[in-house]
Order: sequence, then C-alpha cells, then structure tokens
Amino acid sequence: MRLSQSYMKTLREVPAEAEIPSHIWLLRAGMIRKLVSGVYGYMPMGYRSLRKIQSIVREEMDRAGAQEILMSALCPAELWQESGRWNAYGPEMFRLKDRNARDFCLGPTAEEIFTDIVRNDVDSYRQMPMNLYQIQWKYRDEKRPRFGLMRSREFLMKDAYSFDRDEAGLDVSYKKMYEAYEKVFDRCGLVYRPVEADTGAIGGSNSHEFCALSEVGEEEIAYCDSCDMAATTERAEFRDAPAETEEMKPLEKVLTPGTKTIEDVTSFLGLPKEKSIKALLFRVYDQEYEYVAAFIRGDRELNMTKLINALKIPEFSIEFADENAMGEQTGCVGGFTGPMGLRNCRVVVDSELTGVRNACAGANEYDHHFINVNYGRDYKGDIVTDLKLLREGDPCPKCGRPIRIARGIEVGQVFKLGTKYSEPMHAYFKDENQKEHPIVMGCYGIGISRTLAAVVEQHHDDNGIIWPMAIAPYHVIITLCSLTDPAQKAIAEKLYEDLLAQGVEVILDDRDERPGVKFKDADLIGIPIRVTVGKKAAEGLVEYKLRAGGGMDVITPAEAVSRILEATERK
Amino acid sequence: MRLSQSYMKTLREVPAEAEIPSHIWLLRAGMIRKLVSGVYGYMPMGYRSLRKIQSIVREEMDRAGAQEILMSALCPAELWQESGRWNAYGPEMFRLKDRNARDFCLGPTAEEIFTDIVRNDVDSYRQMPMNLYQIQWKYRDEKRPRFGLMRSREFLMKDAYSFDRDEAGLDVSYKKMYEAYEKVFDRCGLVYRPVEADTGAIGGSNSHEFCALSEVGEEEIAYCDSCDMAATTERAEFRDAPAETEEMKPLEKVLTPGTKTIEDVTSFLGLPKEKSIKALLFRVYDQEYEYVAAFIRGDRELNMTKLINALKIPEFSIEFADENAMGEQTGCVGGFTGPMGLRNCRVVVDSELTGVRNACAGANEYDHHFINVNYGRDYKGDIVTDLKLLREGDPCPKCGRPIRIARGIEVGQVFKLGTKYSEPMHAYFKDENQKEHPIVMGCYGIGISRTLAAVVEQHHDDNGIIWPMAIAPYHVIITLCSLTDPAQKAIAEKLYEDLLAQGVEVILDDRDERPGVKFKDADLIGIPIRVTVGKKAAEGLVEYKLRAGGGMDVITPAEAVSRILEATERK
Repeated sequence: MRLSQSYMKTLREVPAEAEIPSHIWLLRAGMIRKLVSGVYGYMPMGYRSLRKIQSIVREEMDRAGAQEILMSALCPAELWQESGRWNAYGPEMFRLKDRNARDFCLGPTAEEIFTDIVRNDVDSYRQMPMNLYQIQWKYRDEKRPRFGLMRSREFLMKDAYSFDRDEAGLDVSYKKMYEAYEKVFDRCGLVYRPVEADTGAIGGSNSHEFCALSEVGEEEIAYCDSCDMAATTERAEFRDAPAETEEMKPLEKVLTPGTKTIEDVTSFLGLPKEKSIKALLFRVYDQEYEYVAAFIRGDRELNMTKLINALKIPEFSIEFADENAMGEQTGCVGGFTGPMGLRNCRVVVDSELTGVRNACAGANEYDHHFINVNYGRDYKGDIVTDLKLLREGDPCPKCGRPIRIARGIEVGQVFKLGTKYSEPMHAYFKDENQKEHPIVMGCYGIGISRTLAAVVEQHHDDNGIIWPMAIAPYHVIITLCSLTDPAQKAIAEKLYEDLLAQGVEVILDDRDERPGVKFKDADLIGIPIRVTVGKKAAEGLVEYKLRAGGGMDVITPAEAVSRILEATERK
Repeated sequence: MRLSQSYMKTLREVPAEAEIPSHIWLLRAGMIRKLVSGVYGYMPMGYRSLRKIQSIVREEMDRAGAQEILMSALCPAELWQESGRWNAYGPEMFRLKDRNARDFCLGPTAEEIFTDIVRNDVDSYRQMPMNLYQIQWKYRDEKRPRFGLMRSREFLMKDAYSFDRDEAGLDVSYKKMYEAYEKVFDRCGLVYRPVEADTGAIGGSNSHEFCALSEVGEEEIAYCDSCDMAATTERAEFRDAPAETEEMKPLEKVLTPGTKTIEDVTSFLGLPKEKSIKALLFRVYDQEYEYVAAFIRGDRELNMTKLINALKIPEFSIEFADENAMGEQTGCVGGFTGPMGLRNCRVVVDSELTGVRNACAGANEYDHHFINVNYGRDYKGDIVTDLKLLREGDPCPKCGRPIRIARGIEVGQVFKLGTKYSEPMHAYFKDENQKEHPIVMGCYGIGISRTLAAVVEQHHDDNGIIWPMAIAPYHVIITLCSLTDPAQKAIAEKLYEDLLAQGVEVILDDRDERPGVKFKDADLIGIPIRVTVGKKAAEGLVEYKLRAGGGMDVITPAEAVSRILEATERK
C-alpha cells in the first residue's frame, strides 16, 4: 500500500474521552473511530488487524471440528420470551419493533437461536457431537460504556455452541474448545491465564474465563503460586476459618454510643474484628420489591456476585437500601443493624459466621449492640452460604497458602451449559433405543474486538502500538525519506515491489512529508519492521529496525528482504 | 469435511413460503434458514458460498485501489437528520432508542456515515482520490419481504464511496468501479447486463445497474439489439412521436354517455387512441397533502418512477387518489377527468402530449368530453416531462429501432453522487490555492446475499443447485456407497486425504445412509464434482461426474485427483 494514495489519519493529541492505553493508541493511530458513545467504526488498518484475529479464531475453530454459520443480529423476541430472558435481560438489551409492531432485539448473545436450530434439525444421537459457531456483532446497551473497545455497546464476538448426548461428551467438547482457545490467544501474542469463573446470567455448571493479564482489566483474578488454583475473585471459593470451640456466653445488650462502624464498635468493646458481625442492606426487585440483609464477619468483604447468585436474581435488580425506609419496614437501624429481631426481610448469612463464637452485632436499636452473639442459638439465616470476596493473602481455597490477586481482561469464556436451555426449549434427541433425552450443551465465546484492545494493552510503549506480527495490519513499512532523491526513490520502489511479489504485506510511506513525521507515524501505527531508505541509499544501504526494540542495522536491501521473509515466516 | 460429523439438513419437500427457484433450493439444500419473515440465517454450506462471494468482491475492490473499513450497522440519528433522510426514508427504516432515549437506526445505506468520515479527516486535494468500502449487513423494513434472499429485510451489501476533487476525477473512479464490478460478476459465474438506471432516493446524476438476467427479476430492462442502449424501463427515455402538424380545430364539448375508459371514448368518437388524453389521479404527501393529475397519451402507460422524480418526492409518499374526495376539491370527475378547468391540484403533462393535435379529453363533467383539445391553446401543465413507460417494440430512444424487454435481478449499482451529500454536510477540501470546494462523490453497491440468490436462479436444475466452481461451498464430494466394504472405504479415505493435502475443499459422504440418499443430497447441494466410490472399487476404479452434466467416467483415483486439480486450477 502506498500511503500517498491511502486513507490515513493519525492524531497528535490524546482524545479527551480516552482513559486507558488501548483506547488512546487505537484512536491516535487512526485504527478505530468513535461513531457514538460505545460504538466504533474500524478504519483500514484497524479493520485489517481485527480481520486477522477473526481468521486465527476461524482457523482454530475449524481445526477443532466446529462449523461456521451466521445468524442474524436482529432477533425476533419470541425465542427470548420462551427462555424467559426477554425480561431477565433488562435495560442492557437493545429492543425495537418492526413496521408491524413485532418485537425484536439486537442479540446480546445467541443461546436461544442455536438451541432453536438443533431442536428443529437434530433428532438423533447419530447427529452428535456437533459444534456450531458464528462470528457476529453483539449488542449490549451498557449503562456506562467506556474504555473504547473494552466495554462497548457493540462488539464482535465469536460464539460457539456444542451439542452432545451426555456429560461425558460435553467434557470432550469443552476440552477441545479450551485447547483451541489456548492456541488462539497464543497466536494473538497475549499473556493470559485461564481461570475458573462464575457462570452468571448465562447459567450452567462450570466455566473458565481466559483473562489477558492487564492492570486495566475489569476482572479480578485470584491465583495461587503453590498450587494450580486460579479463579476470578467473584467465583473463587473462600476457605472459612475453622469453627471456634469456645463456650457460648450469655447474650447481653450493651450501650455503644456513636459506634456506627466495625472499627468503632470493636475498639469500644475491646474485641478483635473477627469477633464482629457486619451488616449490608439491600433492596432487590424480583417480581416485587424485597429487602435483604446480608451478614459477614467484620473483617471480610462482601462478594456481590455470590450474593446475587445466592438470591437467584438478575444482576441489575439489586441496589443498596435506603436505611430509613428499610428501617420502617424491617426494624433495622442504620449503623446498629444486626441479625436478631429483623422482620419482613430476607437474612443471608455468610457460612463462616456459623463457626464464630461470642461475636458482637448491632441490636437494631440506636447506640446499642449485642455481645456474645452465636449462630443457631441467637439467630438464623434464610440462606447460609459463602458471601466473601477473596483478598490478597487470604488462604488458597485449595491448598491454604496465601493467594495472590491480579487483574485481567476477559477475552474468552467457556461454559458447560448442560441442559439449561435444551430442557425448557425442548431440544431433545432420541438414543439407540428411541428414548428421548435433552441435548447437553456447552457455549464458548471469544471477544474478538476486545482481544484487539487487549493486545494493544499488552503491546505498546510511549510512542504507540507494537503489533505482534500475526495480527499487525502490515508486516513492514518502508520509510522513504526524500521523494526527490532518485537513489532513495529507486531503492524504496524496488524493495516495495520485491516484498509485494513475495506476499509480504508492506506499506510504502511515499507521502510528501518530513522524515520526522513519517517516523512518528510508523511508531504510532506499530508496524513490526521498519526499513528506512535515507541518505545511506547513496551507498546502496538501508536501515533495518524492529518496532519492538533493539538496534538499527545498516544493511543491503537484499539482506533486508531476506530478514523480512524470515521474520514473516515466508522462508 | 466428513458428513458423518457435520451439520447437514436437507429438505425433501418444497417449503410452502418459497415461490422462486433460489428460495426453494437454498432452503431445500439447507444453505439458509428463515429466522423470521425477511430475515435469514446462513448454515455452514450457505455461509461458505456467501463468504466466497465476499472474498471475490474484496479482492476486486482492493485491486481497484479501494480500502476496506467497517462502520456500525447501528447508526445514530443525528447524521440522518442532518441529511434530511431521517424523515425521507419513511417506514422502511428500522428505528430504535437506546437506554437514554437517543434515536438510532439500523443503517439501510451509509452515505451519511462515509461523508462524515471525509469531512472530518480529509481537508486537502492531496488526500484524494480515495475510495473506502465496507461489507456490512443492511436493514430495510420491506413492506412485503419475499423471495428469500432476493427481497429480504436484512442483506449483506458491499458499499463503496469514492472521493474526488472534480467531475473528471469522479469519472475515473466510476470507471474503475464499473470495471471491478464486471470482474466480480464474471467470477461469480453470472450472466448479467449493466444498464442505465434511475438514481432514485439516493440521488445523483448518473447511474448503472448490474442486472443478472432472470425471469424472476424485479427489474425490467429495455435494451436494443441494434445499438448499445440498455436501461431499466424506469429510467429509459421515451422517444416521443413526432409533433403533429395538422391544423388546430375549434374546441368542442360533446356528450359521451358512459364512456369512462379510453377504449370506450375513442371507439364512441371514432378516434384512434393516439388522439386521446388519459388522466391518472394521485394524492401525494410532501410537507402536506396535495392532489396531482397526470396526463399521458391514451395508448401509453405511466412510469411511476418518472412521475415521482418529476414531483421530487420520496417513493412512499404517493398513492392513488380517491376520486370522489379529489373531485370535491379539484373539480375532477371520475372517468371524465381532463386537463382543463382543474383547480387546487398540480397538473403534470407528458411531453409527448405537447405535439398531439385535436385530441379528446375528459371535460370534468359527467358523461362529457372535449374534442379538438390542443396543448398550449387549451391547457398547460405545471410540469411537462417524459412520464411514459417503455414497452416491448417501442422505438429505441437512441436509434429508433424496436426495443426489447427482459427481466433482471439488480445485483450491483454504481452512482455518480456528485456533491449531493458533500454540500449539505459540508465535506469540503482545499485546493492548491487554499480555495475550498465540495468533495465530489460516487457510491457503489453490490448486494452480496442477493448475488448468492441470483447465482442459484441461473444455476440450478430439477434436482438442485449447480454451483459454479468459484463460489461452490466445496469443490468435490466423495460418495462412499458402502461403509462396510473395506475396498470402498480404503479408496474413499485415501482419495479424501490426498485431496485435502492438495488444498481441495472436499466432502466425504461417510454417513450411514443408502447410496440413493447420498446421490440425491449431492445433487441438491450442488457440489461441482462428484466422485462415487462404489462396486467398481474392487477393480480399483471410481466414477467421476460433473454436477453440471455430461457423462460419468470410470477412472482410477489418481486420474480423478489429476482432473480435480485441473478443474480447481490447482495445477
């Protein structure tokens, strides 16, 4: 490609909206372009890289035996109503009506559509295992779209669905996808970690997220250096402290003036925080409004995902309660709420509290706490489960050594759905004896546009992007310093033609610009190899430099071609 | 691909909804799948063919110097409001709101978005010529979606936009695209004709449609065997009969009882139809309701597109008038309407009528006509223009010989937009003297999903599809007749592996089905080459057959490989 005849628009300034490196550099390099909040267009070079990721995904999916199809992004509401997600998805779903007032959505995911295909077209065990996938734009009307391609309202996703006759088959399909994902992310040049994950709104029994490690990632990962434990902190189980064995003492109400926080009350009472019960108050909406009080040990943090899963409600239907309003109905008192004597509200108790003896807790009375509170004797939970968020240094749920915390960008996820969709949507098959069973499903996603952003997060410096060769928009950029120097022009043109003839994807920067501008742009757009044709052209030499670093070599054009063919695996 | 491990669902019955061959065969072969009226999913083989057409389009566009980008299908309303098309597009546009009640549409076309790109990023003549394209799904909420992929509500389109400094530049860009389109449709195996076309709602000065010839086509094409005239009948100019020279006779009102039609009145008065004036009455909405009376020679047919263009209104805003309601306001009388004495309505007169002498016309009075009506002396038009539809045998507008009429499927269209969008949206560039000019634009579309259907219309027989090699989902199908015959199995497996190793796209039909079922499916899905491994395997021979016809050859597997490599241009 000759830059003189091509679209290219790089920015010198950091766009005001951009907060994280991938967003900044993709905009500054002119790879993407904002159409409206959370919706981006892909300009020539950005689209080339996006399509290269698509090709890698396609190759690995095909190699794993999956077959590509394409369903519409415009989905009729009926299937979603059938699965119950038309309501459950809430305001994140873009909805519209056609000219006949029929309801549609822009698909945020496609379980229903794929289940519908197999319930119509698959009726025998002989048609399985089967794995169908698509690479399609997905739509989610995020409340706060931000971070460019990282949390956008439109994103390109590969979603695959496996169909098996039983759990054993699903295990095989799941493993194939897991391994294909490792190949995909390796080939894209990502540093990532597969971690156990929560299954959230999609449902199902087992799931792994593939997280590209990055400070800007929205996922928090807990992992252990001593064993193979790795999970999102949302998902990671908490190893409860051993149940205490001391004698239960008599319950007592004490005056604790002005001690609204755990710090205040434990220091006032001279107790360690481990001997206190912390209250968290919520209002949830599920058919109707309801109050929820959650209790955990005073030194722990609440894991919202675990609470939401325990309550079996959609993510968007929970909010912190207004303490005064809640107090009127339930008897709780802001700052002095405890598990005893509450009414008209659901009480969710963290499992660890059942082993804590003689703790302090709010007395639901202003300036008062109870001491010597014991689970079972003094209070009970409507639900008792693990509600705790894992923090750096907490014991590994598997081996007990201190765990570590990192941040990651979720670029892929694999789920065992089981029969969550096939049963309610009646996708059944007949076995050898003509007996009917629900099809056992898995689902597997890769965020293709998000992977593009994750690669930039991991591969950039202060001057711009540093593309890995496999997904660089072009392999080589030839910087022609002076358009008017015949020696330079001759060498650059010949090199350009020679590389094109070998199938190398090459840019010739033949714009009428100063060399400094050209060098800056070359760094910004991050082409892996730069060949500069400048003053040394008089001696028949060029400068060879890798964007990733290392020195500049002065070599012949022939040597440059040879090195390029090697670097791009063309010889 | 081993069919035993793949998704395939062919239908023995013709689906009730399918009326035309492409719709029938694409459904029966399991290539596409209806999601909802006018919206289809692409199943594995259909999607392979669709992607092959995409690749051909991409290659030819890139070769012509265009650059690929991808803009969102979800378009903010603002740009459409700016161009005025937010209202002009009417009910065909899918509209929706996001969670903040902001208006969006699903893009039916993308002129505004591309104009917005260049007005932001192009400011100098040095950045042009430039041609940007995308391959993106488009959405039009058709009133009556039908014919499968032919008139659907969602369709895959390649749309390109060229940007030049002047008309001369546009001419060059237009010619490049025209030639690229010829290559695309040649490679897809289509029989087509480029014809002059109406520019319709998109606007602009000059346009060609690429029409795949087919009885089921919605386009009517007029062409001349004696010269190079070829145009849609919507667009084709009409060669008016020469102006008559006879003397004007005195105007006279005559009683013509019950003669409501041209046939009746001309036979009652003993006049040829050429001496009569036919009235057509409409109500249009453009800002407000208005009545329109159009007049043409009695033996001609009205061309609605020409009338709509003359009135400069959107296509959907015209309807036939209720004669009684219109009569009250304008004085017209159903069956007896003529151009004289009408009030409160626009009168549009076909140009040919200005040369007709002493014609008869309705007198706007029940059971009465005028005779000896002459344009200029007796009536005038608010608009005088060509309103006539060309019919088989009418004189060629270019050479005067009788023209012919054919039907075609519009698979591509090229437009000269000029400054229709750049002026109102202020996409200007600076020339060498820093003087500002509007960018001169062209736009160029290819209906990719429609091309798929058009190919099937032209390439099928009573047994199914007959794919041209370039866009066949697979090149070869090996039909293994008996899974239990070791000789057959060995030959089929080796042939399969040998072809795969050579890069041939090959299906091995290793399903546990009778040979008859396998042959029927092979014909239905239309794979160009079929190699049957049956009883002759005992002698080391296979049967080689082309789907397009010709005999069956009994040859060695080695000879089959050799022929296949030749047919797929792999040697």
